[in-house]
Amino acid sequence: MSQLRVGLCQMLVTEDKDVNIKKADEMIKKAVSSGAKLVVLPEMFNCPYDNSYFPKFAENCPEGKTIQFMSRAAKENNIYLIGGSIPEKDEKDNIYNTSFAFDTNGNIIGKHRKMHLFDIDVEGGIRFMESDILSKGEDITVFDTEYGKVGLSICYDIRFPELMRLMVLKGARIIVIPAAFNMTTGPAHWESLFKVRALDNQVYMLGTAPARNKESSYTSYGNSIITDPWGRVVSKLDEKENILIQDLDLNMIDKIRRELPLLQHRRTDLYTLDLLNED
Amino acid sequence: MSQLRVGLCQMLVTEDKDVNIKKADEMIKKAVSSGAKLVVLPEMFNCPYDNSYFPKFAENCPEGKTIQFMSRAAKENNIYLIGGSIPEKDEKDNIYNTSFAFDTNGNIIGKHRKMHLFDIDVEGGIRFMESDILSKGEDITVFDTEYGKVGLSICYDIRFPELMRLMVLKGARIIVIPAAFNMTTGPAHWESLFKVRALDNQVYMLGTAPARNKESSYTSYGNSIITDPWGRVVSKLDEKENILIQDLDLNMIDKIRRELPLLQHRRTDLYTLDLLNED
Repeated sequence: MSQLRVGLCQMLVTEDKDVNIKKADEMIKKAVSSGAKLVVLPEMFNCPYDNSYFPKFAENCPEGKTIQFMSRAAKENNIYLIGGSIPEKDEKDNIYNTSFAFDTNGNIIGKHRKMHLFDIDVEGGIRFMESDILSKGEDITVFDTEYGKVGLSICYDIRFPELMRLMVLKGARIIVIPAAFNMTTGPAHWESLFKVRALDNQVYMLGTAPARNKESSYTSYGNSIITDPWGRVVSKLDEKENILIQDLDLNMIDKIRRELPLLQHRRTDLYTLDLLNED
Repeated sequence: MSQLRVGLCQMLVTEDKDVNIKKADEMIKKAVSSGAKLVVLPEMFNCPYDNSYFPKFAENCPEGKTIQFMSRAAKENNIYLIGGSIPEKDEKDNIYNTSFAFDTNGNIIGKHRKMHLFDIDVEGGIRFMESDILSKGEDITVFDTEYGKVGLSICYDIRFPELMRLMVLKGARIIVIPAAFNMTTGPAHWESLFKVRALDNQVYMLGTAPARNKESSYTSYGNSIITDPWGRVVSKLDEKENILIQDLDLNMIDKIRRELPLLQHRRTDLYTLDLLNED
């Protein structure tokens, strides 16, 4: 498989979970009708990005309504579906910001709980404290597909080069980041981060954001983006609701890794980057 | 010390070592007359960036002519001098791409031998194989100044987020990169790399390149650059010979580290980045 058509659904998220699920369903179908084989939803696509909503919207796995919907959508449309993220509740009522990934049969093949929580307080800009409500994920997430291995992280996770590199050392050739940058960090950092993470690790990076909703307490930057292994922006949306459809040339990953062998040139005789307590 | 004026000397390098030293001397003096307290020269400032020149121009430390000149220039001008890089020869005639750093008394306080060699072969673009001639450095380089700790690496080293992070974990607040990107990698990667390395590590990054010389076998991109801890380009030159003079607000490093605490948010309970065989 040297070619993969992806669809990034930059959807407008409302305060009504059922409306959000219906919108996701419609956008997935549109992406599929455009030929997408891997479809990505944005961070917190079933719930406003606001601490006060997370407990009310949180679901248990696998019986939660949104999780069941995603499984069905992946199977019915015969696609890989990266379900953005939703608030997930475990048996102890801890809440996580979790991304579920499904194969073409609707099976969960990946589940990433946001590992780095977004606690930020910029003078004259954004303040947000995810850790007031959310618990941290403890695992790195890379899963197999017929298009190669896919790494999965959420939003603020992209800011940690260690995590991005570790996914690639585990074989990731595509990294998917459901994310909701804001009007402080978006213009300042979004595009540069996607470019350099793709360049450093010689992967495709797919960033999928909610559309900008000026009525919500947290204003998403939008700008869903795809960057390639040479660090180019392949394609990008603006702030409005839309679907980004793009063919990825998977051979380019090997070509760039051959021409500019960054992953081989790492001085693993001098430094080491490791996961602790790995199973 | 909350303010530091730096001078980045983007000099045109010729095939004549004495001419290059004279030019460096003049540019250092100009930077000092503009108030610079830390002056940086470009990669291979005494020698064309071409494998065929490195053995002829290589010097032993500390007696080499260029090294003696740099020590004198630092002392006479009462500045910290980061001497770009020169070909350095050891007692076994191994040749390194080495950056020497001097304090205001002319003492060598840092010495970085390029740790990642530039071996690249891009279709329709640049081909260069440093490892045909050069040996690799084995040490990370961070040294003390009255303005805080400074990390030092050379050109292709910047492509390795592990090395940049390790310098910061050793306390670097400013990272200096003498570098000579080319007309393939420069337009594609130079600015993005400096922005994101500064952003990820919440440091000032200073990149100093040779001026573009269209008659040389290797064409430098130029564009000497300073980026700040928020990932902004503070100041940048074009391709011509010039000196970039800039005040760094060192308090901004602490401000950004407080507002967006990336270094604290690293999941050191889950992953670890370490130097091997450290003294």
